[in-house]
Amino acid sequence: MLQAALKAGTADRRSVFEVFTRRLPEGRRYGVVAGTGRVLDAVENFRFDADVIGFLRDRRVVDEETLQWLSSYRFSGDIWGYPEGEVYFPGSPILRVEGSFAECVLLETVILSILNHDSAIAAAASRMASAAGERPLIEMGARRTHELAAVAASRAAYVGGFATTSDLAAGFRYDIPTVGTSAHAFTLLHDNERDAFQAQVDSLGPGTTLLVDTYDVTEAVRTAVEVAGPELGAVRIDSGDLLLVAHRVRQQLDELGATKTKIVVTSDLDEYAIASLAAAPVDAYGVGTQLVTGSGHPTCSMVYKLVARAHSADPKAPLEPVAKKSLGAKSSVGGRKWAARRPDEHGVAETEVIGTGAVPVELADHQLLVELVKGGEVVAREPLDTVRDRHAAARERLPLSATQLSKGEAVIPTEYV
Amino acid sequence: MLQAALKAGTADRRSVFEVFTRRLPEGRRYGVVAGTGRVLDAVENFRFDADVIGFLRDRRVVDEETLQWLSSYRFSGDIWGYPEGEVYFPGSPILRVEGSFAECVLLETVILSILNHDSAIAAAASRMASAAGERPLIEMGARRTHELAAVAASRAAYVGGFATTSDLAAGFRYDIPTVGTSAHAFTLLHDNERDAFQAQVDSLGPGTTLLVDTYDVTEAVRTAVEVAGPELGAVRIDSGDLLLVAHRVRQQLDELGATKTKIVVTSDLDEYAIASLAAAPVDAYGVGTQLVTGSGHPTCSMVYKLVARAHSADPKAPLEPVAKKSLGAKSSVGGRKWAARRPDEHGVAETEVIGTGAVPVELADHQLLVELVKGGEVVAREPLDTVRDRHAAARERLPLSATQLSKGEAVIPTEYV
Repeated sequence: MLQAALKAGTADRRSVFEVFTRRLPEGRRYGVVAGTGRVLDAVENFRFDADVIGFLRDRRVVDEETLQWLSSYRFSGDIWGYPEGEVYFPGSPILRVEGSFAECVLLETVILSILNHDSAIAAAASRMASAAGERPLIEMGARRTHELAAVAASRAAYVGGFATTSDLAAGFRYDIPTVGTSAHAFTLLHDNERDAFQAQVDSLGPGTTLLVDTYDVTEAVRTAVEVAGPELGAVRIDSGDLLLVAHRVRQQLDELGATKTKIVVTSDLDEYAIASLAAAPVDAYGVGTQLVTGSGHPTCSMVYKLVARAHSADPKAPLEPVAKKSLGAKSSVGGRKWAARRPDEHGVAETEVIGTGAVPVELADHQLLVELVKGGEVVAREPLDTVRDRHAAARERLPLSATQLSKGEAVIPTEYV
Repeated sequence: MLQAALKAGTADRRSVFEVFTRRLPEGRRYGVVAGTGRVLDAVENFRFDADVIGFLRDRRVVDEETLQWLSSYRFSGDIWGYPEGEVYFPGSPILRVEGSFAECVLLETVILSILNHDSAIAAAASRMASAAGERPLIEMGARRTHELAAVAASRAAYVGGFATTSDLAAGFRYDIPTVGTSAHAFTLLHDNERDAFQAQVDSLGPGTTLLVDTYDVTEAVRTAVEVAGPELGAVRIDSGDLLLVAHRVRQQLDELGATKTKIVVTSDLDEYAIASLAAAPVDAYGVGTQLVTGSGHPTCSMVYKLVARAHSADPKAPLEPVAKKSLGAKSSVGGRKWAARRPDEHGVAETEVIGTGAVPVELADHQLLVELVKGGEVVAREPLDTVRDRHAAARERLPLSATQLSKGEAVIPTEYV
């Protein structure tokens, strides 16, 4: 595309691309924008180095003129978007990328990869956080997804409301609080369970979390309290009927005087399993597979579409709306868009309003897009805790039914004006 | 775990860990081992550099003795495993890692991440390749998964039988054949469809593939042949009822004399959609979302379990089998295992046989595990085409029902001896 547009003289036409999704995953009531911070890093670092140029030349992927153009590539346009952590709905213009066709079209894959992945994880995390209420969620899914997707998944989970991660690489890279756990292998390494518990407590103190389901849970809990004393931090249960076992273990711990020892449960949890444990004496949830695979929806179907373009690079040349005209679900709405979330009289979100042209006065204060990149420079970096807080606040302003786990349509309608 | 084992004096106990899965994803008849080559790279490069050690110290994740141990970490043990591309079944010991507890336990997350991700994609790819028969499959899913998971997904798709990828980074990194496509944005950039087609043909020649569903397909096909002539390489259809549209486009192309122009279809294809187009005049399939998300099963549930350990580091100390004893689906079989696939008289796979101790004579020639790492050195690197061919051959030796798409149990049973 780039080579042909360069040759045809159309590569520098001023263009507007937008990221949006035509629908939410089946049954989901809202989406969560996540990955924006990673997109900004990726755009800033998007370059073609000598090795890559050499590869493209050897494989004859593009011609010499295009290679020259690529070797000096640097995005110099503007990006606006929903701030990270915000919620979204079908049609929401989550990101708007403006510049020459050539410089914008190259970013399609990396932008969509990041937003589709991270937003899918954050949406699952957000539902789990709703289900868990005040109880903390621990991200433990690294082993069930690609090794670097795992690090991004930890970040997205934190945005969605998780408290901590067991992925130290995510702590290193994004400063997310990390926590650890011991595996069955640690117990099996030792001559017996008591030796294993003793080794862990000797090294980490009685405040550690002991895994109590390698052999017999009741015996393990007794041994754990004997070894660590009633100051034992927590026990972890990773198998069996968690509801039943948690009640029994709580009772046993209380009888042993370990009334402050907490119970952490893990074992293929998802938002429904978490909700079903709401009445159980559980203090924290560790979630792995279902989190990092988006709890049934590992991607978000976001697309990156040209919605308007001028006839030249001239910033004064008028933008013309463009759109694919095919019949059916894949058509889209042309034109450079704004978006606002209209609240009702109580401040609860009522409608996602999307339009082209001037923003109606009554919606001016409810606009959603913010400036992220200006003339190629990132202007909106922010700490991950700000993003996490924003998501919690945005979810708070949705109608209550948004956080119920039952399937349904988007919790507010999208209106085009 | 590492810190406590170092303190307790158990960290250097000779240990055997195995990777296996307790079950195949629901309905799947076989699994595909993929990612082994990436595991070997990861093991070889697994180090803790000064920045990471500094992070672990600042966060007080582990004590100073452990930091010292980590800063000189290098895996020095042995790894055997199913060769990459081989198929597997519930219980198959896909990888076996031997060394001190400490050096082996550290590799759990990276090994599982790679195998769980890559094998999930390869399994989906393999089913799609069966459904596509002789027609080539193009990997086009980068935008629907994490940006680096995408590169690994291209590699796994190639192992599973895909012919090419649109992910240039995968071509660069793994030397997979790359192909390109134009998007609707390219058509919309130009003043009309004819200008867009002309620009593409001028730059890439008539052998290019033109996207014909931006406006009206019939008109686009007519324009495409007018612009490129009957030597037009292919047209791509990305929306609508592909079965119907492919028939109409084929007829139109033939009437226009473009009898050799091929038809490429894309649009949320999965193995079932591919199979349903078997009788349609389609020449190639482009597959995205459903491939990179494992077609409903984005991970493989592989686990990494301690199955045997000695009481010391002494290579002569006897290995004792160990296993979690809990009730239910999460128990596992202790002991260092071998595996063989017993064929019937026609050479068709009949049983996956897994055992500990001596290998029965009649199975000696059918063993599955090969040496991959010896004393910390990788001894089994191989070209990706070898892996791809191995998978095709392994699938060929399965009972025919393996490649039917209907749901069922594992196509051969697992037998423990």
